[in-house]
Amino acid sequence: MENIRPIILVTNDDSIEAPGIHALVEAVKDLGDIYVVAPAQQHSGQSSSITVDSPLRIKELPEAPDGVRYFVVNGTPVDCVKLALHAIVPRKPDFLFSGVNHGSNSGNSITYSGTMGAVLEGCMQGIPSVGFSLLHHSLKADFTLSAPFVRSIAQKVVEKGLPAGICLNVNIPAKVVPEGVRVCRAAKGYWTEEYRRYLDPAGRPFYLLTGRFVNIEPDADDTDEYWLARRHVSVVPVTPDQSCVSAIKPLSDRFNASEG
Amino acid sequence: MENIRPIILVTNDDSIEAPGIHALVEAVKDLGDIYVVAPAQQHSGQSSSITVDSPLRIKELPEAPDGVRYFVVNGTPVDCVKLALHAIVPRKPDFLFSGVNHGSNSGNSITYSGTMGAVLEGCMQGIPSVGFSLLHHSLKADFTLSAPFVRSIAQKVVEKGLPAGICLNVNIPAKVVPEGVRVCRAAKGYWTEEYRRYLDPAGRPFYLLTGRFVNIEPDADDTDEYWLARRHVSVVPVTPDQSCVSAIKPLSDRFNASEG
Repeated sequence: MENIRPIILVTNDDSIEAPGIHALVEAVKDLGDIYVVAPAQQHSGQSSSITVDSPLRIKELPEAPDGVRYFVVNGTPVDCVKLALHAIVPRKPDFLFSGVNHGSNSGNSITYSGTMGAVLEGCMQGIPSVGFSLLHHSLKADFTLSAPFVRSIAQKVVEKGLPAGICLNVNIPAKVVPEGVRVCRAAKGYWTEEYRRYLDPAGRPFYLLTGRFVNIEPDADDTDEYWLARRHVSVVPVTPDQSCVSAIKPLSDRFNASEG
Repeated sequence: MENIRPIILVTNDDSIEAPGIHALVEAVKDLGDIYVVAPAQQHSGQSSSITVDSPLRIKELPEAPDGVRYFVVNGTPVDCVKLALHAIVPRKPDFLFSGVNHGSNSGNSITYSGTMGAVLEGCMQGIPSVGFSLLHHSLKADFTLSAPFVRSIAQKVVEKGLPAGICLNVNIPAKVVPEGVRVCRAAKGYWTEEYRRYLDPAGRPFYLLTGRFVNIEPDADDTDEYWLARRHVSVVPVTPDQSCVSAIKPLSDRFNASEG
């Protein structure tokens, strides 16, 4: 590590007003110079969305007494990361931490997660990046018990970095003292019973998202769902590159073609 | 293949009004019973976004003379897929085709792509799913030269399916007759110069997204960017599972812990 303080970019998807991002700042603020760049509004389920064709604005809030600087962007978590790099931080951040999310991002929820959208963006920009999520949806969730684990994992990343092209998806059980930490993979599954149907006053149907995750491998002891159910913090190494290289050869025979 | 016609779900991210989705329907409509379920509005760059806490409505358009059924949803591409499965198609679709997108989804653009968000959703639901994109942003793009390739790839998928857990990201050069088809991986890279800065009438800055993709491996002959630059159709096998299993062991030593 250079002999200057690292720059740490902090963001989330629950907005600047969510308690989770302030719990994250408290846990990591002595590890570097903190720039918080967060959405003005709630962006749960926004994945890696970017704002196209619509103006983005940056508003700086008053600097906190502890030196943490706060910026608000009227966009998505990925917009926050991109715009932070483009126009806010004085140089490329050394680390990016996202969260603490109010709610789980285990299993395949990472696909929809704005918290992890920001993390994947940081990773693609070459920044060691970690997303933290607490398994409790409420804005009144208590981050006291999770804070030491956020702190410990962030500190290890600041000390040793992360392998190139890898970011971390950290999920933390709520309302218990976690019994340990396990590096693992995301449990495979899908969502079911995803909508509740309503009728509006004119008798026309509309739908609201709900549903539950079906873990198709509940006994797999190398998965996040397995360890979260056993009161452990799960740490999943994640790659933004979704190419399935092992499938290229088998599929080449079927699809490769040359004309003429 | 069963002796009944397959159900094919067709969606996109450019909305029901985009010529690309109608080019896709024309190319595949004799391969099965077609249900088009598409966003009411443009959703480029929406990735795997889902609509949370806001009502979704389904509107069926008049059935076309060729028997194709059209539905519009006031949501994202992933909303369209989820709601199609929940409330529109009579049984789980046998195949999902998304596109034809007006613009490239090669390189790391898949991360932001609504076209591919729908495809990843289909894949996680166990449906063989393919996204098609034409390397031309205009709504006036000409799909004539790409149509035979869309048709040929779709037909091969209908005949033989896809490996479990794998979907395809197909990109097609514009304004040329493609010289062939190559199965490959996504070129690694990142976006740069991503915003243009403006001043509003009150003198306050705002930003609009722009930028260009920097391919960090332009000579890698197993990548989509390489083959697209050489007038080939690229077919990238994609997995929704972003866990990097090879990183679990090296990171376990550093992060695993048990309390007490």
